[in-house]
Amino acid sequence: MADFYTIRWLETGAVSMIDQRKLPRQVIYNQYQTAEAVAGAIQDMVIRGAPAIGAAAAFGLALVPWYSKNENPDLVLGEMEEAARILRKARPTAVNLSWAVERILQLARSARAPSRAALQGLVLEEAQRIAEEDVRVNLSLGKHAQQLIPDGAVIFHHCNTGSLATVDYGTALGAIRLAHEAGKKIFVYVDETRPRLQGARLTAWELLQYGVPFKVVPDSSSGHFMRTGKVDLCIVGADRVAANGDVANKIGTYNLAVVAREHQVPFYVAVPKSTIDLATPSGDQIEIEERPPEEVTHINSCQITPDNAPVGNPAFDITPAKFVTALITEEGIVRPPYPENLAKLFS
Amino acid sequence: MADFYTIRWLETGAVSMIDQRKLPRQVIYNQYQTAEAVAGAIQDMVIRGAPAIGAAAAFGLALVPWYSKNENPDLVLGEMEEAARILRKARPTAVNLSWAVERILQLARSARAPSRAALQGLVLEEAQRIAEEDVRVNLSLGKHAQQLIPDGAVIFHHCNTGSLATVDYGTALGAIRLAHEAGKKIFVYVDETRPRLQGARLTAWELLQYGVPFKVVPDSSSGHFMRTGKVDLCIVGADRVAANGDVANKIGTYNLAVVAREHQVPFYVAVPKSTIDLATPSGDQIEIEERPPEEVTHINSCQITPDNAPVGNPAFDITPAKFVTALITEEGIVRPPYPENLAKLFS
Repeated sequence: MADFYTIRWLETGAVSMIDQRKLPRQVIYNQYQTAEAVAGAIQDMVIRGAPAIGAAAAFGLALVPWYSKNENPDLVLGEMEEAARILRKARPTAVNLSWAVERILQLARSARAPSRAALQGLVLEEAQRIAEEDVRVNLSLGKHAQQLIPDGAVIFHHCNTGSLATVDYGTALGAIRLAHEAGKKIFVYVDETRPRLQGARLTAWELLQYGVPFKVVPDSSSGHFMRTGKVDLCIVGADRVAANGDVANKIGTYNLAVVAREHQVPFYVAVPKSTIDLATPSGDQIEIEERPPEEVTHINSCQITPDNAPVGNPAFDITPAKFVTALITEEGIVRPPYPENLAKLFS
Repeated sequence: MADFYTIRWLETGAVSMIDQRKLPRQVIYNQYQTAEAVAGAIQDMVIRGAPAIGAAAAFGLALVPWYSKNENPDLVLGEMEEAARILRKARPTAVNLSWAVERILQLARSARAPSRAALQGLVLEEAQRIAEEDVRVNLSLGKHAQQLIPDGAVIFHHCNTGSLATVDYGTALGAIRLAHEAGKKIFVYVDETRPRLQGARLTAWELLQYGVPFKVVPDSSSGHFMRTGKVDLCIVGADRVAANGDVANKIGTYNLAVVAREHQVPFYVAVPKSTIDLATPSGDQIEIEERPPEEVTHINSCQITPDNAPVGNPAFDITPAKFVTALITEEGIVRPPYPENLAKLFS
């Protein structure tokens, strides 16, 4: 286990999260006691990463019965439905958020808890289960990934998909960490991931702690390192995988996939099944969040651009399925054709 | 003309340059009175851009006879040869630097000036000629480019190739500016260009002054904007073009070229003939400068990465000729096959 945690329920009735906006310079944990505050933390990227924001939303909903002044469980459920609306809107692209919210709500609706206290217990238990499952799922996914990571592999990685993007262990970075712990002599190119610099700030911070050899490089250098023969494979995570295998992930994933294919470098996407959304037919139906211009114009408090420079800041992009060599899930490797093989995965 | 200048000879015997490290927050001009100091300014990127550093090297050499204590022109020439060695080493990738140094030295060697003062006059005149030619060449290149820029074009641009990268007007950005001044309703995606952010800092600053509509976007978003049908063409500059048409340019150029080809978006490289080096057979012979890690770990004074994070910082990449739709030069458009057509351009 790492020497930090991403998100945890405190027995005093609070959700504690490491503030990822402050890493790596400061290691600070924030506490949240309302679902609205958790939604704000998701929106402001105190916590990010599809599986992590799923767990955050679940714990956020668990705060509602905990603090409700209503003793009638039906009224508490009504408060939870309202909180769910706010949580779902916090970020539109990752499917895990609405997946976790829906899972908690369905349980709460069907349980017919006799009291607020009973509902509180049920919901918190389910949120804890979501968090624990995430860790198990990541470990399983990471084990399946090992067949794709040869000893000595040089891996190109985008954004952060480690413990910080999940409850623990991580998806793509979890697989990388497992490879290192298994004694494989791997090396990781960590791209910076502008504009939020999740690679330079978070992935670098994690890999230093795990002792995995790496270099931080500019996002746009991936082609250079592939062309000069230095990269064996790419592994990234995802915020949503559509039924046809199209992948929504952090902006820059698509560029990486295109240059990888140009160099016949395998391009793997590591995702828990909860990130795969068969209800989304293709990437065309996935909303791409536009984030505030300040993420581009400023780094910490330093202004980069001239005053009044207009900015485009799409937070995600779509990588069409044809660029994806394989999906790595907790139940094994899924290869094309994705429409058929993803349907099988869920049947 | 823009309301600033990149480089200018001062009649008091100094080279004045706008400090591009400080833009856009501060507009400061530095003065240099020795060739060594000019070499330092090139190395530290006070001035950058292949044509601009060519002019800087020429003016740097003109400082030698100006301040020499020797009255014997042969001894002064010896000092110039020594200064030339230092200037050439300042940055290895752009060919304009050694091209300008060689041009000044050849004149100085062949002129057999009767005195230090005569040599001083000759050399300064040649340096001024290099600077004036650069402006003329850029205007001519920009006019030829117009046939490739339709009215209403949405253009993706990398790094800075404007007045700041040249003595005035610029190469790729000069062509863009001319299109705007001709009344074409163009729009420019300005990528940030990590790590030095020449796009976010310098190109944005220039385009605001020229009134050209644009947006600053992360480098890695180029594929997203092309895939969603928002880009009509790319124009970039170059630091060196090899005899076979391979292009050395700012890191990230290659990624942009690969995603452009994936989307059938034309990819143009705007270069003065002085950037084309027939003595370099292909991109494989071009040295790629590795710049200091601090360019990646820090932005202004803000540290991004954790302490001790290793960094890769290749300043340039090679775009193989097959990705280049056409080269735009002051003598017209050059299309494939480049080996034949570049040879013709110089014959």
